[in-house]
Formats: sequence, C-alpha cells, structure tokens
Amino acid sequence: MQHIDFLSRLALPATSKIVLLVLDGVGDLRTAAQPQTALDRASTPNLDALARAASLGRLTAVRPGVTPGSGPGHLGLFGYDPASPEADIGRGVLEALGLGLPMDTSDLAARGNFATADGDGNLTDRRAGRISTAECERLCAKLQAAVAEVDGVSVQITAGESHRFVLILRGAALSADVEDTDPQRLGVPPRMPRAASAAGEPSARRIAKLVERLHAVLADEPQANRVLLRGFSKLPALPQLGEVYKMRCGAFAGYPLYRGVASACGMEVVPCGKEFNEVVTAVAERWNDFDFFFVHIKQTDTAGEDGDLAAKAAVIEGVDAGLPDLLALDPDVLAVTGDHSTPAPMKAHSWHPIPLLIHSKLAFVDDTTAFNEQETLRGHLGDLRSRELMGMLLAHAGRLAKFGA
Amino acid sequence: MQHIDFLSRLALPATSKIVLLVLDGVGDLRTAAQPQTALDRASTPNLDALARAASLGRLTAVRPGVTPGSGPGHLGLFGYDPASPEADIGRGVLEALGLGLPMDTSDLAARGNFATADGDGNLTDRRAGRISTAECERLCAKLQAAVAEVDGVSVQITAGESHRFVLILRGAALSADVEDTDPQRLGVPPRMPRAASAAGEPSARRIAKLVERLHAVLADEPQANRVLLRGFSKLPALPQLGEVYKMRCGAFAGYPLYRGVASACGMEVVPCGKEFNEVVTAVAERWNDFDFFFVHIKQTDTAGEDGDLAAKAAVIEGVDAGLPDLLALDPDVLAVTGDHSTPAPMKAHSWHPIPLLIHSKLAFVDDTTAFNEQETLRGHLGDLRSRELMGMLLAHAGRLAKFGA
Repeated sequence: MQHIDFLSRLALPATSKIVLLVLDGVGDLRTAAQPQTALDRASTPNLDALARAASLGRLTAVRPGVTPGSGPGHLGLFGYDPASPEADIGRGVLEALGLGLPMDTSDLAARGNFATADGDGNLTDRRAGRISTAECERLCAKLQAAVAEVDGVSVQITAGESHRFVLILRGAALSADVEDTDPQRLGVPPRMPRAASAAGEPSARRIAKLVERLHAVLADEPQANRVLLRGFSKLPALPQLGEVYKMRCGAFAGYPLYRGVASACGMEVVPCGKEFNEVVTAVAERWNDFDFFFVHIKQTDTAGEDGDLAAKAAVIEGVDAGLPDLLALDPDVLAVTGDHSTPAPMKAHSWHPIPLLIHSKLAFVDDTTAFNEQETLRGHLGDLRSRELMGMLLAHAGRLAKFGA
Repeated sequence: MQHIDFLSRLALPATSKIVLLVLDGVGDLRTAAQPQTALDRASTPNLDALARAASLGRLTAVRPGVTPGSGPGHLGLFGYDPASPEADIGRGVLEALGLGLPMDTSDLAARGNFATADGDGNLTDRRAGRISTAECERLCAKLQAAVAEVDGVSVQITAGESHRFVLILRGAALSADVEDTDPQRLGVPPRMPRAASAAGEPSARRIAKLVERLHAVLADEPQANRVLLRGFSKLPALPQLGEVYKMRCGAFAGYPLYRGVASACGMEVVPCGKEFNEVVTAVAERWNDFDFFFVHIKQTDTAGEDGDLAAKAAVIEGVDAGLPDLLALDPDVLAVTGDHSTPAPMKAHSWHPIPLLIHSKLAFVDDTTAFNEQETLRGHLGDLRSRELMGMLLAHAGRLAKFGA
C-alpha cells in the first residue's frame, strides 16, 4: 500500500487549519568556499523564535542522492510517491497547468518554443531571439486561427512568457510516447516527431502533420519561423487531496508552475501576487474557506539558481519579516520547508536534505534554537521522506485516527 | 522499482573519479568493558582532517538489527538490495569466485571441507586435522584425475586454503536446492545430499553419486577420507555495475572473497597486495582506467573477529598514514566506510550502524571533527541504507540527472 493510501484510511474530517509554507529550494550548502548557507546568513529572528517553540527535522524529496524537479518535489510534499508511475507529471502538462489551462486525463500537452531557422531550414536560434510575450501572443493567435484541428484532434495553442507556448491536443487515443522535436542544438533542422513506442505511432504522425502546417503558417515570419516541441505528456489521474485528506485545500502561489501542480492534485488555486506579503494577504482573505493552505515562495529558488547567496538570504529575511502576519492567523499547524535544496554554489536543484520546521501545540519542543541546515539535523522530527510530511502535518493537527485497536 | 533500477535511469556517463574505501568490519562498540571503539582509540589525524572537510553519516547494511555476511554487506554497498532473491549469492559461489574460478549462471558451486571418519564411517574431525594447503592440493588433484564427470555433468574440484576446496558442477538443469552434507557435529557420518525441494531431486541424486565416488577415491587416505559439502548455490544474474552506473569499475582487494563479489557485480578485479599501501599503489597505476574504484581492506575485520581492539586500531592507523597517497590522486568523491561492523567485544560481524564519510566538492561540510561512531551520528548524511550509498556517491560526483521536470 502506498503511504498516501494509508493516510487516507486514517484521515479525519477537518476541524483545523494547516499551513504548509514552501520556500522553494531553501536548502543550501556549506563548503570551503561558502562556509554559510542562506539560512545561516539571513537574519531571521521570527523563524528562530518559531524554531525554539517547534520541532525541526529534514526532508529527502524522492530518494537519497536523487535531485527532484519542481513537479516531483511538490508531489512528494503533498504525500504522493514522486517515483511511482502514477505520479509522473510531464513537462508539457506542468506548463499547461501553470498557464491555468484546464486539462483532462485524455489530453496531450507539450511545451513549445518559437525558434528561428535559416533558408536551408537549419536552426539558428532555438528561442527566436527571445521574442517578447506580446509577440508570442500574436504568433499563437495567428497559428490558432489557421490550425484549429488536425485529423479530428482539436489543437489549442496558448502563449507563455517570451518565446514559450503550450500545445494541447484533445481527441481520442492520444499517446504521450512521442519524442521531443527540439534537437537541443543549432545548425540542424527541428527533429521530426518520432514515436517512442508502437503506441505512439498514430500520435506522432498527427503531430508531424500539425508541425508541417504550423511551419507553413510561420513561413513569412522573419524571426519565429519554427516551433520546437518538448515534454509530450498527459495528466496523471492523481488521487485528489480533498478526498484523500478530507479537507478543503487552497493553493497560494505566485508562479504558474506551482499553481499547476496544486491544481492537478485537486487544490483550488487562489490568485495572488508573488511577494510573501501579497500571498499572506490572500491567505488571510480566504482563511475561512480552506483547511489546508499551500503557500509557495519561488524567489529562494531563483536566487539559488542564480548562485546569489546574498539574494537568497534577503528573500528569507523578507519571509521572516512577514511571518508575524501569517502567525497572527493562528494556524493549528505551520510547517516551513522546501521542495528541494538549491545550493547557491551549484546554481541548480540538488539532493541535499531540506530543512523542516513544524509548529503546533502537539509538536515536541526540541533543543534547536534556529532554523538552518545544521540545527535541523538535531531536530526531533529526524529525517523523513517528503511524502511522509502530510501524515506528520495531519498528526500535528490531531487529524489522524489511531491505527488499529 | 528497486532503488538500483531507479539510479540506473538517472545515471549519467562517467566524467569523474569515485573511490569507495571499505574498511571491512570497521564499526565497533562502546560498552562498559570497552569504553572506546577502534576508531576512538586509533590516532587518525588524516581521517579526522578529512572528516572536518566532509559529510559524515551512517549505513545500515541490510535492515536494522540484521547482521550481514560479507556477500550481502558488499552487495548493499554496490547498490543492490541484499535481501532480494535476485541478489542472493550463496557461500559456494562466493568461494568459487574468491578463488578466481570463472562461473556461469548455470553452474552449481559448493564449498568443500576434507574431513576424517573412523572405521564405522563416523566423523572424528570435520577439518581433517587442518591439513596443509599443499596436502589439500594433492588430494584435489587426485580426486579431479579420478572423477571428471558424473552423469554428464562435468566436475571441477579446486583446492583452497588448508582443508577447504571448491566444487563446481557444470551441466544442464542443475539446481541449488540441495542441503549441506556437513552434519556440523562429530560421531555421525556425513549426511546424504538431500533435495530441499522437488526441483532439487535430480541434482541431489547426482551429488550423492559423486560423493560416493569421491569417498571411494579417498578410501586409502589416512586423514582426509571424507568430503563435506556446504552452500550449494548458483551465481545470480546481477545487473552489471558498469552498465547500471555507466562507469568503468575496478576492484582493488587483497582477499579472494571480495574479488569474487566484485567480479560477480561486473567489476574488473585488479591484482594487488593485501596491505593498504600496496592497494593504493595498484589504484594509482590504474587511475586512468576506471571511474569507480572499490578499495577493500580486510584486516580491520580480522582484528575484530579476533577480539583484538588494539590490532584493529593499528590497522586503522596504518590506513590513516597511507591516506595522503590516496588523496594525492585527487578523487572527485572519496567515501570511507565498512560493509558491516565487527565489534571486538563480539568477535563477530554485527548489525550496528557503519560509520560513513563522503568527501567531495558537493558535500555539505558539517560540524563533525573526527571519524568515529559517535561523530558520524551528528553528520549531515544522516542514516542511510547501504544500498542508498551508490546514489549518494553518484550525486556527489554530479552524475545523477535531475528526476522529473
């Protein structure tokens, strides 16, 4: 039995408020060259006071040593096993959900780039000079007007930011077993859509025909005369969190991707800004409407990906400054953690364990005095897998029934 | 999905050097009677300096409380689940591999002892007076000359040390479901080879016929007039490490058993001496030929089995003294650990967690200041299963792809 199914058997109907504050990529490294992590460096009087009154611990997102993408990182936090085939959310689906596009489990999505090819059809820019979002919207409208369907499959083309768009195909018997058309290099034409399995053949043929028609429409464009498609994928039929945990789940995230994941898990996505104070304001406004609040702050990850430790620490300080407003709502359980680590020295996601704090009347007040990597190692929660977190949050809210007599 | 299959999906081709230094049985106990472990007692300035620049943690070989043999202990370190039937290496196979005898997955191996029986056929010495290796070789040659096959199955008899030999049978449809013929006590005859299942019946009948013929050949021997057979087993078809982890794997071990295990896992066994400086010299000579170096030091385990804490500490000090030579090769990742603990007070393998150190540019430099059991408990790596180690080593070498988008 998967852990989430076990929890679902024990979950009691909600009579409490749980806040899960995810600081994306918050975990960092101590190395000879960087002796302090972002959490070490940031001045966080409120988080540290919370740590002194809470239990600390660490999460491993997927498996030891395995670095998760944003999808698996969050699915783990919500209780799914990200390594199970049932929880495999592809890049195309993530992007579609991130733009707020409704998807059904029979739909096929891909992430698209506009690109530039020369007279011989060889790619000269895989991002079409990073055209503006307005230009991208113009191109998508032009394509959509010209190509509404192909072989009985409806085609939806939606602009993203800059040169990015999302393609959704709707129809019977679509397969995600189609390879990327992005060759990942210049001087060659886009790849033909190839089937990754026999099951993918009909879809690959349809997509090849579609790409041909799209390129015909783009033939007179000076810059964006090609499309590159990646991450063909379908929405997995994930158990919906409201049913699994018997609570009303609201997602408060400023960035599309995280809204998308939350939506796929069955949360209601609440529109809000990207800054912590904006997100907290949105949470306060909807405080009576939900039992579980997924609050996502992206900027820690962005700073980590930029290798900018000072910026990462500054984001954490901003969250710390706004924390009293969140605490003023008096949640029964407040957890602070990340979906993975994004150490500044690596400028990338990593596998390093993620700091975790759980504050609740039922939390063991351990000896830890600050919220950082080294202190969490001493915490009472110990080392958990991310998919074990939801059970701990429910438990700390008094919402898991005793197992067995 | 087993962890090793998951890792295999993510492993990137090698562009780095990983050294896994296994101090066999290094973990020890603190008790009232023995207040210091071997690592506590040994003076290890180099290991301690490494610990200050590295991450520490602990490994559990198989499952908590479970004491592993040498086979399972090492299979875990290499990423297999030693408790899975697919990774079950029997004693006969281990001995055969340890003598450098090539084995195929259809061959059947057993570990043999020469023994002494009296005129009534009852055993008086299960080790035939611990005859010399030279005597053992003479007896094996005599048996091999007399018995080359039985019922169409070819028979290979190879001398080991003292009274020990290895029997390998080659032919179609051989089964390992045959019980030991060693009764484990004196005053009774050797047991008949009995089938442990219906599938083992034909093999048991052949082996009974073989034993009868071997005893006939030995009838005129004054001392070694019986054979006792144990650990009938076949080589499991283990996923080969070179393919699994996409790297060239070299094994540097002075003792046969560990060479055998490494060979069964697909490593190239490099001849070398038994002392640490000899092994390091061999590693240095082949530095360009491999991406992964399994370095095995046996003497810590031997001292532990002897209950000789001072000798165990001395072996560790010898390794410490030679460590700079290994570090001079500048491996991207150096891990120091054991395959299990062999506490001197127990004079045996044990289940106690095994100290682990990982040094790499991507290792979190935790607050630990020495390499010993108590310090590893505070380490950033936390508690891992042995089979999770390879993923951590690959991660610390930057060689695991991100999982999911």
